[in-house]
Amino acid sequence: MSNPSTLVISAHAGDFVWRAGGAIALAALRGERVTVACLSYGERGESASQWLEGKALDEIKQIRRAEAEAAASVLGADIEFLDLGDYPLVESTDAVSHLVDVFRRTQPTVVLTHPLHDPYNGDHPAAARMALQARVLAQAIGVANSDGSYPTRDEIIGAPPVFFFEPHQSEQSDFKPNVLLDVTEAWERKRAAMECLPAQKHMWSYYTDLAVRRGVQVKRNAGPNLGLPVDTKGEAYVRYYPQVTDVLA
Amino acid sequence: MSNPSTLVISAHAGDFVWRAGGAIALAALRGERVTVACLSYGERGESASQWLEGKALDEIKQIRRAEAEAAASVLGADIEFLDLGDYPLVESTDAVSHLVDVFRRTQPTVVLTHPLHDPYNGDHPAAARMALQARVLAQAIGVANSDGSYPTRDEIIGAPPVFFFEPHQSEQSDFKPNVLLDVTEAWERKRAAMECLPAQKHMWSYYTDLAVRRGVQVKRNAGPNLGLPVDTKGEAYVRYYPQVTDVLA
Amino acid sequence: MSNPSTLVISAHAGDFVWRAGGAIALAALRGERVTVACLSYGERGESASQWLEGKALDEIKQIRRAEAEAAASVLGADIEFLDLGDYPLVESTDAVSHLVDVFRRTQPTVVLTHPLHDPYNGDHPAAARMALQARVLAQAIGVANSDGSYPTRDEIIGAPPVFFFEPHQSEQSDFKPNVLLDVTEAWERKRAAMECLPAQKHMWSYYTDLAVRRGVQVKRNAGPNLGLPVDTKGEAYVRYYPQVTDVLA
Amino acid sequence: MSNPSTLVISAHAGDFVWRAGGAIALAALRGERVTVACLSYGERGESASQWLEGKALDEIKQIRRAEAEAAASVLGADIEFLDLGDYPLVESTDAVSHLVDVFRRTQPTVVLTHPLHDPYNGDHPAAARMALQARVLAQAIGVANSDGSYPTRDEIIGAPPVFFFEPHQSEQSDFKPNVLLDVTEAWERKRAAMECLPAQKHMWSYYTDLAVRRGVQVKRNAGPNLGLPVDTKGEAYVRYYPQVTDVLA
Amino acid sequence: MSNPSTLVISAHAGDFVWRAGGAIALAALRGERVTVACLSYGERGESASQWLEGKALDEIKQIRRAEAEAAASVLGADIEFLDLGDYPLVESTDAVSHLVDVFRRTQPTVVLTHPLHDPYNGDHPAAARMALQARVLAQAIGVANSDGSYPTRDEIIGAPPVFFFEPHQSEQSDFKPNVLLDVTEAWERKRAAMECLPAQKHMWSYYTDLAVRRGVQVKRNAGPNLGLPVDTKGEAYVRYYPQVTDVLA
Amino acid sequence: MSNPSTLVISAHAGDFVWRAGGAIALAALRGERVTVACLSYGERGESASQWLEGKALDEIKQIRRAEAEAAASVLGADIEFLDLGDYPLVESTDAVSHLVDVFRRTQPTVVLTHPLHDPYNGDHPAAARMALQARVLAQAIGVANSDGSYPTRDEIIGAPPVFFFEPHQSEQSDFKPNVLLDVTEAWERKRAAMECLPAQKHMWSYYTDLAVRRGVQVKRNAGPNLGLPVDTKGEAYVRYYPQVTDVLA
Repeated sequence: MSNPSTLVISAHAGDFVWRAGGAIALAALRGERVTVACLSYGERGESASQWLEGKALDEIKQIRRAEAEAAASVLGADIEFLDLGDYPLVESTDAVSHLVDVFRRTQPTVVLTHPLHDPYNGDHPAAARMALQARVLAQAIGVANSDGSYPTRDEIIGAPPVFFFEPHQSEQSDFKPNVLLDVTEAWERKRAAMECLPAQKHMWSYYTDLAVRRGVQVKRNAGPNLGLPVDTKGEAYVRYYPQVTDVLA
Repeated sequence: MSNPSTLVISAHAGDFVWRAGGAIALAALRGERVTVACLSYGERGESASQWLEGKALDEIKQIRRAEAEAAASVLGADIEFLDLGDYPLVESTDAVSHLVDVFRRTQPTVVLTHPLHDPYNGDHPAAARMALQARVLAQAIGVANSDGSYPTRDEIIGAPPVFFFEPHQSEQSDFKPNVLLDVTEAWERKRAAMECLPAQKHMWSYYTDLAVRRGVQVKRNAGPNLGLPVDTKGEAYVRYYPQVTDVLA
Repeated sequence: MSNPSTLVISAHAGDFVWRAGGAIALAALRGERVTVACLSYGERGESASQWLEGKALDEIKQIRRAEAEAAASVLGADIEFLDLGDYPLVESTDAVSHLVDVFRRTQPTVVLTHPLHDPYNGDHPAAARMALQARVLAQAIGVANSDGSYPTRDEIIGAPPVFFFEPHQSEQSDFKPNVLLDVTEAWERKRAAMECLPAQKHMWSYYTDLAVRRGVQVKRNAGPNLGLPVDTKGEAYVRYYPQVTDVLA
Repeated sequence: MSNPSTLVISAHAGDFVWRAGGAIALAALRGERVTVACLSYGERGESASQWLEGKALDEIKQIRRAEAEAAASVLGADIEFLDLGDYPLVESTDAVSHLVDVFRRTQPTVVLTHPLHDPYNGDHPAAARMALQARVLAQAIGVANSDGSYPTRDEIIGAPPVFFFEPHQSEQSDFKPNVLLDVTEAWERKRAAMECLPAQKHMWSYYTDLAVRRGVQVKRNAGPNLGLPVDTKGEAYVRYYPQVTDVLA
Repeated sequence: MSNPSTLVISAHAGDFVWRAGGAIALAALRGERVTVACLSYGERGESASQWLEGKALDEIKQIRRAEAEAAASVLGADIEFLDLGDYPLVESTDAVSHLVDVFRRTQPTVVLTHPLHDPYNGDHPAAARMALQARVLAQAIGVANSDGSYPTRDEIIGAPPVFFFEPHQSEQSDFKPNVLLDVTEAWERKRAAMECLPAQKHMWSYYTDLAVRRGVQVKRNAGPNLGLPVDTKGEAYVRYYPQVTDVLA
Repeated sequence: MSNPSTLVISAHAGDFVWRAGGAIALAALRGERVTVACLSYGERGESASQWLEGKALDEIKQIRRAEAEAAASVLGADIEFLDLGDYPLVESTDAVSHLVDVFRRTQPTVVLTHPLHDPYNGDHPAAARMALQARVLAQAIGVANSDGSYPTRDEIIGAPPVFFFEPHQSEQSDFKPNVLLDVTEAWERKRAAMECLPAQKHMWSYYTDLAVRRGVQVKRNAGPNLGLPVDTKGEAYVRYYPQVTDVLA
């Protein structure tokens, strides 16, 4: 069994915080390695207030990068940036090839990324499609690394489960959660990471409310007798491949 | 946390063996309680060879009952029969009320039943609908037991997860497994239980082949590096409610 | 191989004409037996003009019956009436049991009925559900006839294909045709049968237009080179069970 | 064109408040008639705290009735109770027939009810199925009233649009809103109506948070330039039949 | 609130006439601005008769352009051509960038385009994907215009609703209309616009029949009592994003 | 009517054998022409054992080519290779243009290819998308061949039916068969063709078991009375466009 390793593939610099911050912090609190791969800084599409202030493109990218690094640090994750540009995030075989490298280097046992459908933001599904394609290519010993070298038997990856984190408008994105993650233990960390993103202060309460809502569902689906605390917080996920287990529970 | 208890709700006397025998045996091997509730004996719809031999209805019911008891015993499960009749299995508030009793008595932490769609056999979805309705009613302190008494606080149930086991023609029944159960450890028991049903000998190889096929998928979805044995056997399930967990894996 | 026999199960007295008249007439023209089982006369829900004229219930039923008999005769089909009442058509085990008799008596090699979803008319899906249930029960040697006798080996049926004919508002009923039937040869008969239903004269042109529309699709999906005539007429169906064949075409 | 009249069909005594209170109050504020038909009091399934206090069935029904009347009054709606029982709410032709009377008496131009799928509560879809069936039957001049009399031409209804209000766990109920209603104007009334239901105090904040969440979506889908207030509140609906209009907007 | 402005994005030169001519003419009759953006002339894929006559590519493009201009003029719309080529219509960031310009220039309050699925014509979904992507990009102040300049605050767009117009084979394209537009008032204009496309004369009657069919559905879904004329004509649409409103109707 | 001609478009060198070998051999046994177009050799993604042995890319391609030629020969089909590369198989207008040539040259009356969804292998849907696009382009007289010449009236194709063959994990690929092909007559040939692929010996039994499983379904759906042999073998397909026929059966 491989060492636990979580790989988070995020289209823009902030996505991993709002949607998967609890899962990341939980894993880090268990002492596991977490790597966030940011495909872009969200410099064009998710930085409106900075554009309105007249900042330049490079400056905006630096600000977003610094914020994301701070948030990742609070959550306990490593972070790297592929700087592929956003709005639109353009899919390419080159970008996928670099993601293959990331998969082989981090040897994930769990993969988190965006869902495949989002009518409000085309970059999110593009990130998901590249993540899924890279995951399959990274399994194949005949697929070269981005520098043209071939992987050894140890460098290819297995078949880690993939979880889609929550889009901004879940129902419109056909997002039907099949996993509810109890993130109560990690909630303070997630809240602190959100506060590393000051330009989107209105999102703090929005995602706090969402955590409460998903927490209610955690309690509802776990049954009323289990003694979960009143302030249970949750995150919702869609598991893409079937769960493999030797016990039904 | 309640003691582990698995409740299997089966439309006919043989269903639980072919489709969930592995899960039942695994739980029993872990020392857990398993209860099979057979809603009918399958006396009309799944006993063609006995009708062709000219046997009478009551005789057929006795034969099916004895076979099911033998199979349950091999698997390590208790079994009870509601004798509701089959072909058709008629839904009624009475039948549901008796199932409410079963839920409250067995206090299941896991529920297994048929999926909600099966174009080849209407009894299977009818069993599933009654099982799901009874599960919700059994949670409510204001819903009386079948004898008119009201449950105590301890007698109502929580919200145990529900897993649908595999129908005979999976794709036609819109059955898309989201859980693959590794039943290798319990395979010998399942095979022995199948052999308690001699009238359906052609099913032995059919369900052995299916176990191999689902085993290949267990290995595929667990990743090639995990060292699962070549003869891994599997069973496929659909989890109906979202999984509640505090770790993504 | 059984003799060709088509069984049409229709909720109301007119349904089989508008939606399946072409298929019925084609079969009859090939010299095959066709039986229409009308579950009701449509006396309450589809006879508004007669109610507005102040006719009594029994009179309306007689009128509808006579019209349906005339239309069936023109199409070349036998017709029988179960008189189960409409609006609502109530499902019952008794009604299903009588349908089991019809299946066993007619030994259908093809079954036509309503689709399972229709947000404008609950009687149509009710008819379909009873037809499908009766078809499965009629296959089982352990299921008695409605008079309590048991069928012989020859009296049970096989697994005839089921085709759903077109509802009034196809898209709203999630009706996605997977069979387009070329009814050009039988069009005159279908038109004549429609004209046996004078109270619904506005439907004549409606269903003629629909036949043209489906005919365009017949030509489109058959390919432009096949030389189908300009005035090709069509009917649309959904095949419910997979087609069994030994040649892909 | 008929006078505006909204008919709300609610399985239990509280449902119409939490899920449709804004729509009801908006209509009442416009001076329109609103009628709530409560099929049951929710006496068994949604009154746990009262059962735990040892209250008797009739007493619970009285309490729930009084609360619902108070809430309806605050919202500006008439309310009536069919007392069909809950957990389970049993579908019957009698109950549907009484709903036909309600439709014909209130002549609704808008109908609100539960969605057709809810894996957590079978009473909600049962209410919706009966509401939809009654709406179609009420259109037919050949369908008698519950007292056996036949309707006049003026007493049958047209084809009012149907909107499903939001279930407790929207994604699990396959609830994909296609209408977002801005209820900001009516929010204070809805809040006051919720406070008429003191036994479910935890729901007050839950449904306030939901109103904020749906309000964010109102703003998002209306476009950022429209100047909607920061504290916009919303309710989500699914329109069941296609919208008929003479202007796209 | 912005001035009403309708933007129609059409893959080929004729599409906007057959499928959305009624909506365009209705808006123009209300005195509103309508702009048609034709991505190609349909010169390769939808001009078979001209190829069979031996015409050259450029000549065909000129003919199609002139016909489309005439039809747009009859409908009361402006038209522009992006000349991106057809069969296949190739998606590119450049083409999307030019569409962003169109969105910002026309400031649409309503957007009409093709649906996202059409198994008979890949250009239609390609046009829709580009239209949807451009609409989102045009909202972002950080996304440059195609000349590299950045938009001002007034130049970015809001979130106009998007309506998909009807494909040639609706059911096969999973097109389930949720808006039925009464185009009776504009029908003469639409018919006249169709007659500007003489090479496709067989389409005139096809789309007239379709308008009658959709008109029947307009009447059906509006209710029998509303007094719509017998010759009501309709067009069907799918609204892609949820409707935002403050009144349910 | 054109001469029967089957075109099989396969992403990798082995796909056509495992999934469509029976259909190919049946057609060949009927004396019909079958052409397999292999888009790649599967040299990177489906040749793990050869990479592990240290073979070079070109050598692997040669081996795979030879094996595929041998298998095609056993089945009775012609084979050609487009050598587009795999893992990933990149979609391009050039590749599609070459497929247009293949369609026009082979004038298929039946087309077989991969289904459009496969979460385990992105090359399969990419092949299907290109096949479907090429089929539509090849119908248009205005679309040039890959050498820039234009087709004559005889060189364009009609609208041959398309069948998707079975993916490796059918349910996960949303593969719901609507055609079950009885391949019993051709089974020996298929088995012999599989044995031309020695590196994937474990697949021989896997696909033999699958043929048995699909054979059981052939018998089930054809009805128990039809006298199909015990060892009936089957293959499953999804017909993409509606079947055009003049007889329901």
